[in-house]
Amino acid sequence: MEPRQEEQRGPEGNMSEVGEKKRRSAEDGAERSSDLSRDQLNLAATFVSDAQYNRNIPFDSSPQAVRLYLLYNHSLLHVLVYIFILVDLSLALFEEPAVVSLPLWATSAMELVCLLAFTVRMVHFAKVIPHRTFFRDPKNLCIIIIITLCLIDMIIYAALYASGHSSVRWSRVLRPLLLVNVTEGRQLRRAFRSIRNALPQILVVFCLFIFSVLMFSLMALKLLGKRNLTTIEGAPYFTNYLDIIFDLYVLVTTANSPDVMMPAYNYSSFFSIFFILYIIINTYTFMSVFLAVVYNNYKKYLKEEVRQLVKAKRQKLCRAFSLLQESVGGAGREPVVSQSRWTELVKRVQPSISSAHRELLWNVLDHNNAGHIGKQAFVQVADLLNIQVITLKSRPHPLQLWIPAVYDCTASALVRRIVQHRVFVYVFDAIILVNAVFIGLDEEDPLVSNAEWAFLTLYLLEILMKLYTFEPRAFFARHQFWNWFDTIIIVSALLATIINAALKSSGGYTSRQVLDIVFILRVLRLIRVVDTIPSFRAIISTLIKIGPPMLTFGQLILVVYYIFAMVGMELFKGKVQFFDTGSEDPAQEYCGNPMLKGSAFARNNYCKNNFNDVVSSFILLLELTVVNQWHVLTGGFTAVTHISARIFFVLFHIVMVIIIINIFVAFILEAFFVEYMVGKSDLQTSLEKKIEELNLCVEQHPADGTLVDAMETQDNDMGSSEGVKAKPTLMFKISSKRYRTMDGLLQRMFETETDLSADDGDEEEPENFSNPSFTPA
Amino acid sequence: MEPRQEEQRGPEGNMSEVGEKKRRSAEDGAERSSDLSRDQLNLAATFVSDAQYNRNIPFDSSPQAVRLYLLYNHSLLHVLVYIFILVDLSLALFEEPAVVSLPLWATSAMELVCLLAFTVRMVHFAKVIPHRTFFRDPKNLCIIIIITLCLIDMIIYAALYASGHSSVRWSRVLRPLLLVNVTEGRQLRRAFRSIRNALPQILVVFCLFIFSVLMFSLMALKLLGKRNLTTIEGAPYFTNYLDIIFDLYVLVTTANSPDVMMPAYNYSSFFSIFFILYIIINTYTFMSVFLAVVYNNYKKYLKEEVRQLVKAKRQKLCRAFSLLQESVGGAGREPVVSQSRWTELVKRVQPSISSAHRELLWNVLDHNNAGHIGKQAFVQVADLLNIQVITLKSRPHPLQLWIPAVYDCTASALVRRIVQHRVFVYVFDAIILVNAVFIGLDEEDPLVSNAEWAFLTLYLLEILMKLYTFEPRAFFARHQFWNWFDTIIIVSALLATIINAALKSSGGYTSRQVLDIVFILRVLRLIRVVDTIPSFRAIISTLIKIGPPMLTFGQLILVVYYIFAMVGMELFKGKVQFFDTGSEDPAQEYCGNPMLKGSAFARNNYCKNNFNDVVSSFILLLELTVVNQWHVLTGGFTAVTHISARIFFVLFHIVMVIIIINIFVAFILEAFFVEYMVGKSDLQTSLEKKIEELNLCVEQHPADGTLVDAMETQDNDMGSSEGVKAKPTLMFKISSKRYRTMDGLLQRMFETETDLSADDGDEEEPENFSNPSFTPA
Repeated sequence: MEPRQEEQRGPEGNMSEVGEKKRRSAEDGAERSSDLSRDQLNLAATFVSDAQYNRNIPFDSSPQAVRLYLLYNHSLLHVLVYIFILVDLSLALFEEPAVVSLPLWATSAMELVCLLAFTVRMVHFAKVIPHRTFFRDPKNLCIIIIITLCLIDMIIYAALYASGHSSVRWSRVLRPLLLVNVTEGRQLRRAFRSIRNALPQILVVFCLFIFSVLMFSLMALKLLGKRNLTTIEGAPYFTNYLDIIFDLYVLVTTANSPDVMMPAYNYSSFFSIFFILYIIINTYTFMSVFLAVVYNNYKKYLKEEVRQLVKAKRQKLCRAFSLLQESVGGAGREPVVSQSRWTELVKRVQPSISSAHRELLWNVLDHNNAGHIGKQAFVQVADLLNIQVITLKSRPHPLQLWIPAVYDCTASALVRRIVQHRVFVYVFDAIILVNAVFIGLDEEDPLVSNAEWAFLTLYLLEILMKLYTFEPRAFFARHQFWNWFDTIIIVSALLATIINAALKSSGGYTSRQVLDIVFILRVLRLIRVVDTIPSFRAIISTLIKIGPPMLTFGQLILVVYYIFAMVGMELFKGKVQFFDTGSEDPAQEYCGNPMLKGSAFARNNYCKNNFNDVVSSFILLLELTVVNQWHVLTGGFTAVTHISARIFFVLFHIVMVIIIINIFVAFILEAFFVEYMVGKSDLQTSLEKKIEELNLCVEQHPADGTLVDAMETQDNDMGSSEGVKAKPTLMFKISSKRYRTMDGLLQRMFETETDLSADDGDEEEPENFSNPSFTPA
Repeated sequence: MEPRQEEQRGPEGNMSEVGEKKRRSAEDGAERSSDLSRDQLNLAATFVSDAQYNRNIPFDSSPQAVRLYLLYNHSLLHVLVYIFILVDLSLALFEEPAVVSLPLWATSAMELVCLLAFTVRMVHFAKVIPHRTFFRDPKNLCIIIIITLCLIDMIIYAALYASGHSSVRWSRVLRPLLLVNVTEGRQLRRAFRSIRNALPQILVVFCLFIFSVLMFSLMALKLLGKRNLTTIEGAPYFTNYLDIIFDLYVLVTTANSPDVMMPAYNYSSFFSIFFILYIIINTYTFMSVFLAVVYNNYKKYLKEEVRQLVKAKRQKLCRAFSLLQESVGGAGREPVVSQSRWTELVKRVQPSISSAHRELLWNVLDHNNAGHIGKQAFVQVADLLNIQVITLKSRPHPLQLWIPAVYDCTASALVRRIVQHRVFVYVFDAIILVNAVFIGLDEEDPLVSNAEWAFLTLYLLEILMKLYTFEPRAFFARHQFWNWFDTIIIVSALLATIINAALKSSGGYTSRQVLDIVFILRVLRLIRVVDTIPSFRAIISTLIKIGPPMLTFGQLILVVYYIFAMVGMELFKGKVQFFDTGSEDPAQEYCGNPMLKGSAFARNNYCKNNFNDVVSSFILLLELTVVNQWHVLTGGFTAVTHISARIFFVLFHIVMVIIIINIFVAFILEAFFVEYMVGKSDLQTSLEKKIEELNLCVEQHPADGTLVDAMETQDNDMGSSEGVKAKPTLMFKISSKRYRTMDGLLQRMFETETDLSADDGDEEEPENFSNPSFTPA
């Protein structure tokens, strides 16, 4: 491991010019730090790293357990766990009813391998943490139970299969729960916990809502049931109480508006008052109240969780501090950590950051240049390491080094001036707009297909000119999203177009797939235009920023979809058949099921919306989430099975639309508000101030009054690092944070509100590193 | 006027026992206050009253102008203005195309009367405020322009009508603008101003959203246009770029999901990816971003407005103070207002409140019993008067006074004990549930109709027993919502049932209308059950509390609906015909318009959804607000006119669904959060503390852990005021505030956030009482 070697070299080896004035004090520290054992340092680094990533695993502090724990946290193993979960989940593609059929032994073998992997991971985890805590943790018990049940189900199924019986693979609904219960599913677990805690309140509103639906239904029965009205299909209108309840429940989803009203409205305009009141009360007011209650409760419990998270983080950092602390200047003084120990720690925690960056961070913590920091400063280290600092090295262009005569000549300078000019951007925006028109035209026209080559050439030229002007490594830096986007799209489009042309000229045959890809890439190219409009860029960058935390929602939705898809497949597989468009089968008319003859489901050609395989199920569930035509889609499945199938669909509606979509909306709202209102954190500000103080900052242009004061707006003003003049060759910039995890965003959301100063409970309960749990008060 | 007489009597006349200890200092004050002129007092009272109701009219301070101004603010005149606006708006019912046709001279005469009334009101206003400010105020100019244009339009229309030509009554779209521009439409004006200020930001997101729709459409055209797919109607699928844009725009409303996807999905499952991405990006993410942006901007500007409102209020109170101030104890001291002057002021501002209540308020302001208050305390008077205090007099039951022997006997006491017992409530809840089952049964059954009489008797008995137990005036106090509700419903049900029975027995004929009313009342009776479940009661009381401010939204929606209905009627009247259900006309099949033959509009029997009169138009617009079947409804009107009619409907969708519904949702969210999180205001707390201190409080039962700590939960625990013991005969309780106006709720929303202490700008610009206007910085 690299950091260990660096440790041997000592801090003198890689001191940059930034820390020059600090060297002396650091050397003093280096002498004193020799008494620190490697195990202690390892343990401290583990605590800091846990604090940084908000891991809350109460691992054993013995050296071998710490080493095992470090292995446990290795990113490769995390990736492996997720791959195995993915494989386990995607087994549904190959098991009956399958998209691609595989024999039973193959899927069973794959499942066994996955289960084995989870077991190994579980055993590893059991070795890391003390035994008594292992069995106290519900998530471990959950995994053990899931693995056992899966095995039992496999054996039963295989036995029945061998004896010619068919059976239900009920354990498949348990698979997505692995995603929740693995150690890495922290954020997902928290989301579920928050939903669970919010449930009682949601239930109260739901009961009141159902009461309101029942009252309206009773009134509808009394007012309309005896009037001998018929629906457009000729069925009696509003005569059965249970049907009325269902119809009015569907009206809450708005799926059957205005159809459900029409017979009564046609009979008398006065009945429209009934439906208007219903829509105002149940569809608008109650649904808004649901959003308010879900939002508020979810936020409340999440806030409490984050509060506990921050507390646990602080405790971990305090433990790290007590491992590293030295006493300077007698017993009466507060214990401190010297720069050398700090440097070793940071090297171990985050080997990837440059020594200059490390020096900068130390400068932020050690205001008074004392050469050591107290506890108060030390506990900031995890947050400080989490701030993304972009190190900009103002390197000369490689061409300038290789062929300085050519690169610095007047013509070359002119080219570079042109590329950096605003007009250059405008010209290419205009080209994109013209291109958009050409894409809209018929591509069979030779003029259009020739123009396509011209556009491709122009785009390629643009990239080459930019690469000529800007330093390539800066151009392709990690945070230059749009440069990467451009280059990848253009190069792919070029390749696809060439392949397409080759295919065409060789056999006169055009591959539809290649052509599709060409078209998609052509259109995607146009997206770049949003980058040149600052207010668009601001919105996009906000959306990109809140993207990663949204992945937790993706997982949440995946879990819910998967469970409902599995149950739906068992209930409805094969009941509705889809016949390929070419088919002449008369059964096509009624989706292969005579019970659907003349139904709205068959009439609307919804045969492909079925539960016959996992992909169709997911698409159907998405359609049910959108809720339009909800009654037609569910009506089809009720017709082919039993009226009680409605329970399945209503349950899905409640879980997905009323709870999860509302949380999704609440989360976007909250994230946007944070972007609008919460400024930089104190630490970020002090880091920025320090960068400025040391005169290492990139020039900041005044923000152009955009929607969100997004720092990304600076990202393509690379010109500023070109005017080298008297500037240092190394510069720093705080990148606006793309929250790598949900935790980061959540903490930022609540950090202004959560006040921990009152109860930081320093060393009081240092062993209590359990996952934060919140019992409703 | 009563208060003037009171003034003569002096404060000694109506001193309650509460203020006994204060009498001396008040008498001192009474002597000194004689030098205060009536005009000054009037002016001060006007300032305080304006502050109380947040009126911002820069009226002339001359005595006659003040008197005119008081008249201008008379509640009767406010009601009259709204009646005239209502009449003016409802003229649309009688003008062509009419619900009830009236001759042109009749509607014109009515309109002239309304316009005259508005002119008179305008002239009155012009007399109240200085001339230079009158013409500077845009809302006055707006009204003048509206009145002029209406007159011109009437003349043109009448002239053309007389000469046999037909013309367009274009001035009708201006009518709802009166609602916005009358002095009383303050809150509505503020809502519009906030929307206008938020528009630029909304526009940015909207442009990006449209850009996204265009990109997706282009991609759809390229990917699907050449595949020769057809829709279920056999039309070519995704071949025309403009049609694709419209189809994908409709998909944002979700109205054509999943139909728009089905042809592509049936062709290949891979195309579902395109639609899934579209739904995730445009339907979910962009719509949430719209909510976030609308919410955030609307809130931001509203906050600024409220800040200015609070500032203006303070200025008015400072002016009132400077009119009333006296100096006590030499020139060096701060000026103060004595109790006597304060009492006279409050009597004039709010003649209705009892002297005991007045004494209580003075006690809150004058902590130190100094007999006078400084400016700091004085400026609280408007907020203090706005806190609703319920005066509870523990009076004995009238029967106890009339027939004490009977009322106090053991049997009577037992009855009262029973009524006050919890089981009494439970028994009647059970009766209601049994009743619900009976309502659901067939009412033709003699058993059921007899049971109905039994239930009515039981309910009546319940009310009578309660009246026997509780003091009738307390039972029917203003805030006892559920008692009123019960009694009104039961008495009406009794009357309607008797009428129904009488009709039935007399001629054997049952009036359908009476029966309908009986049914509605029967079902409404069941609602009472929510009152006995505390968590339901809490939600309901929150909804009732935010009800009145929602009226502003009602007006906002009315204005938008009215304008769109007027335009829609001019564009589409008579194009779609509805034939009564009995009709045999073959044209019924296609809504009387051959262009609709075979269209989805006619097939779905939507003929009654038309713009043929104002009522139908409103119902149709509501259906378009709900957005389901949006494409079918709009498709019908596009078919009978021109494809460009889509512009009208898309515009309505943008205004109504994207902007106003989002604001509605945002407002419910915010109001709920306020109810959840914001506690009582400081002033309320200090008032409550004072009530407790003086031992005049009603016993507070511990809140029963409900959703919102609603004080209404105490409302039906009237038993507490029965145990008279050593309690004073007069008690106070702070009623939980039902925000009479939007202002109250808004101020409560933002009062924790708006900090005015920094810039209260005491006397600096006392003339600047203009309506708060906010220019975007």
